[in-house]
Amino acid sequence: MDGKVVGVLGGGQLGRMLIEAANRLGIRVNILDSPGAPAKQISAHDGHVDGSFKDRKSIEELASRCDVLTVEIEHVDTEVLEDVQQKSKNVTIEPSWSTIRLIQDKYRQKEHLASHEVATAESVALDSNLEEELRSVGEKLGYPFMLKSRKEAYDGRGNYPVRSEEDVLAALEALGKNALYAERWADFKMELAVMVVKTKDGTLAFPTVETHHENSVCKLVWAPARNVSTDVSKKAQDLAKKAVSAFEGKGVFGVEMFLLRDNSLLINEIAPRPHNSGHYTIEACPISQYDAHLRAILDLPIPEASLQLREPAIMLNILGGKAADSHIAFVRDHALANPRTSIHLYGKAEARPGRKMGHVTVTASTMHEAEALIEPLVDAVDEAAGKPLGPREPKQEKPLVAVIMGSDSDMPVLKGAFDILRKFGISYQARILSAHRTPDRMFDFAKRAEGEGFRVIIAAAGGAAHLPGMTASDTVLPVIGVPVRASHLDGLDSLLSEVQMPRGVPCAVVGINNSTNAGLLAARILGVADERIRRAIREHQEASWEEVRAKDERLMEIGPEEYLKGMRK
Amino acid sequence: MDGKVVGVLGGGQLGRMLIEAANRLGIRVNILDSPGAPAKQISAHDGHVDGSFKDRKSIEELASRCDVLTVEIEHVDTEVLEDVQQKSKNVTIEPSWSTIRLIQDKYRQKEHLASHEVATAESVALDSNLEEELRSVGEKLGYPFMLKSRKEAYDGRGNYPVRSEEDVLAALEALGKNALYAERWADFKMELAVMVVKTKDGTLAFPTVETHHENSVCKLVWAPARNVSTDVSKKAQDLAKKAVSAFEGKGVFGVEMFLLRDNSLLINEIAPRPHNSGHYTIEACPISQYDAHLRAILDLPIPEASLQLREPAIMLNILGGKAADSHIAFVRDHALANPRTSIHLYGKAEARPGRKMGHVTVTASTMHEAEALIEPLVDAVDEAAGKPLGPREPKQEKPLVAVIMGSDSDMPVLKGAFDILRKFGISYQARILSAHRTPDRMFDFAKRAEGEGFRVIIAAAGGAAHLPGMTASDTVLPVIGVPVRASHLDGLDSLLSEVQMPRGVPCAVVGINNSTNAGLLAARILGVADERIRRAIREHQEASWEEVRAKDERLMEIGPEEYLKGMRK
Repeated sequence: MDGKVVGVLGGGQLGRMLIEAANRLGIRVNILDSPGAPAKQISAHDGHVDGSFKDRKSIEELASRCDVLTVEIEHVDTEVLEDVQQKSKNVTIEPSWSTIRLIQDKYRQKEHLASHEVATAESVALDSNLEEELRSVGEKLGYPFMLKSRKEAYDGRGNYPVRSEEDVLAALEALGKNALYAERWADFKMELAVMVVKTKDGTLAFPTVETHHENSVCKLVWAPARNVSTDVSKKAQDLAKKAVSAFEGKGVFGVEMFLLRDNSLLINEIAPRPHNSGHYTIEACPISQYDAHLRAILDLPIPEASLQLREPAIMLNILGGKAADSHIAFVRDHALANPRTSIHLYGKAEARPGRKMGHVTVTASTMHEAEALIEPLVDAVDEAAGKPLGPREPKQEKPLVAVIMGSDSDMPVLKGAFDILRKFGISYQARILSAHRTPDRMFDFAKRAEGEGFRVIIAAAGGAAHLPGMTASDTVLPVIGVPVRASHLDGLDSLLSEVQMPRGVPCAVVGINNSTNAGLLAARILGVADERIRRAIREHQEASWEEVRAKDERLMEIGPEEYLKGMRK
Repeated sequence: MDGKVVGVLGGGQLGRMLIEAANRLGIRVNILDSPGAPAKQISAHDGHVDGSFKDRKSIEELASRCDVLTVEIEHVDTEVLEDVQQKSKNVTIEPSWSTIRLIQDKYRQKEHLASHEVATAESVALDSNLEEELRSVGEKLGYPFMLKSRKEAYDGRGNYPVRSEEDVLAALEALGKNALYAERWADFKMELAVMVVKTKDGTLAFPTVETHHENSVCKLVWAPARNVSTDVSKKAQDLAKKAVSAFEGKGVFGVEMFLLRDNSLLINEIAPRPHNSGHYTIEACPISQYDAHLRAILDLPIPEASLQLREPAIMLNILGGKAADSHIAFVRDHALANPRTSIHLYGKAEARPGRKMGHVTVTASTMHEAEALIEPLVDAVDEAAGKPLGPREPKQEKPLVAVIMGSDSDMPVLKGAFDILRKFGISYQARILSAHRTPDRMFDFAKRAEGEGFRVIIAAAGGAAHLPGMTASDTVLPVIGVPVRASHLDGLDSLLSEVQMPRGVPCAVVGINNSTNAGLLAARILGVADERIRRAIREHQEASWEEVRAKDERLMEIGPEEYLKGMRK
């Protein structure tokens, strides 16, 4: 872009997706990794360096060929990086070598965060790795606690849960050769992650996502996190930004967090680079974490709106399986035919069981749809891994409209609504919920309606018609009231009971017994964000105009006397 | 994917974006083009062929290295392709050489379409290129008509508009050395395009888009086409599919069409390959035209839902300018800082004025937002080209809610709605439109409301309150009626006038004078597709619960007598 050349230590999948972004932006990137590494496969020029990103000579060679040096993996030799930075004023390292060094050592990372008052699990470094020391740590932190290698640990390698005193010896047996530290057990209800972009001007955050790990390896990422309030989501972004602000240098940082049962947040781990939990940004945000990383380290502008979610998305990792081509078979037999699924294979030469070979991202206009779309792929992955699937509910389209009524005697009145919804291809579910005879069931429904994926509620009731208004009082969805004509007052009682709501709780009321209009109003409401439905409404409208026009022409043609005769038949 | 190797004649930007898709799918692609061609830059292996895609030896070499041969440009030597296909059973050419041959000769392309009863402009081939011949063609087709080279013409090169008899000599002067044909003038109101995917099983279509050309070069693409009815959009897809079905072979085809003033459609031109008018698919659809092309020629599955639009999108080409780095300057100074803008540079070594150097795609949740976002970029392009910008309206956020009233005396009643909309950050515009005193203005507003970007209408009226219902009769947007209490009947007249609508035209009515609830209902309706608004509603609801709870506690604390005293103050 501005002629600066970027050098990257490491050329695996993260380097490869960084190159994808660089190719589009016209940024020259030189990769240091072995020949034919995934990133090098999609970048054909002679500036790459063949070698190990842990080898001094190779790193120096790469540094001599670039203006900004960055990493796709934190397990690099920071002594060399420090030397390079001190010797050369022509190259900057982003993020700085000191940040990479701090982060590589998980204990120092935690200490550093704690010293900046960033919430993280209490940690104790081990000096001797002797049994007595670990027992005294156990007394301090309580059981269970996590024993962790300070360095070179990722995807759960180097972690050992010490569940009770009896685990102490086994834990030391497993990890005792490494520098270790112990972490207080975090009893989390959910794992969240935020990709933070650190620029010359400050920090920006991608959305808060939910991550799910299996065997300590990231399996699924939901963007945005499901069932998390705005407030928690915002707090997670703020905590992640605060944590990243504590480190020097520029670029994207992956911040993994625990959401505890009391809705407080703890930082679990930080990666000073693009991260698995940010792959979803390729499809789901206007610019990806890779694009953002390049812009950040090169001081190019990053509009904040470009980090927002375009649509809900779910990412599923494709791991190597039993056979050398299990990951290819998954793509060929499942992913290619799955709707709205973007496929990313990393071009790794050798597949090993559990190795990250690729990922897929499903996008949809709602999380419910995305969940339904990804489900067969998750099943296929689980089946291939020999994981029992167990009984599953038959897959059904989530209904968009709930049609609730106070009594089954209202059913005939609601026929018009059912007909319209069916005609417009809008899925619905009908329920009998009486405000006065089943108040608990009614409120339970109202509270859950949004979470269950409903978008509009049609509520019909007669007499002291409280159902629409009471339902509206405990949901944020629009509620359409259909006043049902009961035995007295010609329905005026029902109408006034539904329409004269107090300020603060709106109810959208249509004419007495006119459920056709309730169905059409639901369609108009859904049409606000759905061009397909708006078109169907237009066609329906035009057909009804046409019908009246035809009747008018016939009336002019045959005159009122004949017309009336025809009506009597 | 299945181990098959693809060979591509040509390695420009289309080949490059094809390689991007192939890299993600793990498909090996060999490119025939000069060394360092854009496509080769992002594909580092030794299977590419250096040479011209018009050279027999090079084509044969490429064919020997692949299983499926395809093109990114139609101006290739089809004699060689025919020979290759006849000599070798190991390679298939997609689409077939006969299709490419038919399409490269625009006259034969049109003839072929006409013979398959596909609507296209009437065309006459020239035999002699003599003045008399062209004059007699002019008599047959009428003036103006288009004189076109049959072959090797693209981006307007090889076209000459013959506006009157006086242009005949100049036209022959310009194009006379080529094989020519003449085309009846198409007086179109708009240019549309559809990318069609031809698979072993049939045809699939991406959405109908609108294209804008400047100096005969594609400049802008709007997806979906603006102000085009569902019906026309669908007809364009059907016509494009019918046209492509007339040709042999698999792959994507770009179909350019004219939409005439009577809403009929004519095929303008077909490209047997990915096309500039399909670049938007990279960001705007779950799978891109490039991904679809690879799947089609390799018989891999293509889910139809993956060709649908995720969000409205606008694509703007980046052409070479006066300076060698004009296109880079555009990206650096404008595109990078523009929100929701994806950048694609093609890596072409030499920039020439008018050469396609890259493109940007803007996506947004509505076309209105996308238009507002792309405008500064179009301005920058026009300014760089020395095109006068002329006076522009100041940029304003498009209001989402229209608040209309029958009389300014209704203003005080509507204050509650204005307060709520402001509180929720929902943009609105207020209008005075009387059903009975300005019926034309009311209908004009109703007809245009959707196109102008409104999503919900709040209509307040009193007495014979016809405004909400009459407005609802000529729009597909949800209309919320606020019955205003007028001088008689305490507002019951207004309520019944608004709520008792005939079947077919729904109106969502709230309580008498209760415009607060109308504002809240508008928010709930917009919240159906907007999580931010749903959260704001929840917070508002919780605050109001809290308010009542606090009052209740105070009442219990101080007792009713004291409480009443406090109220009297």
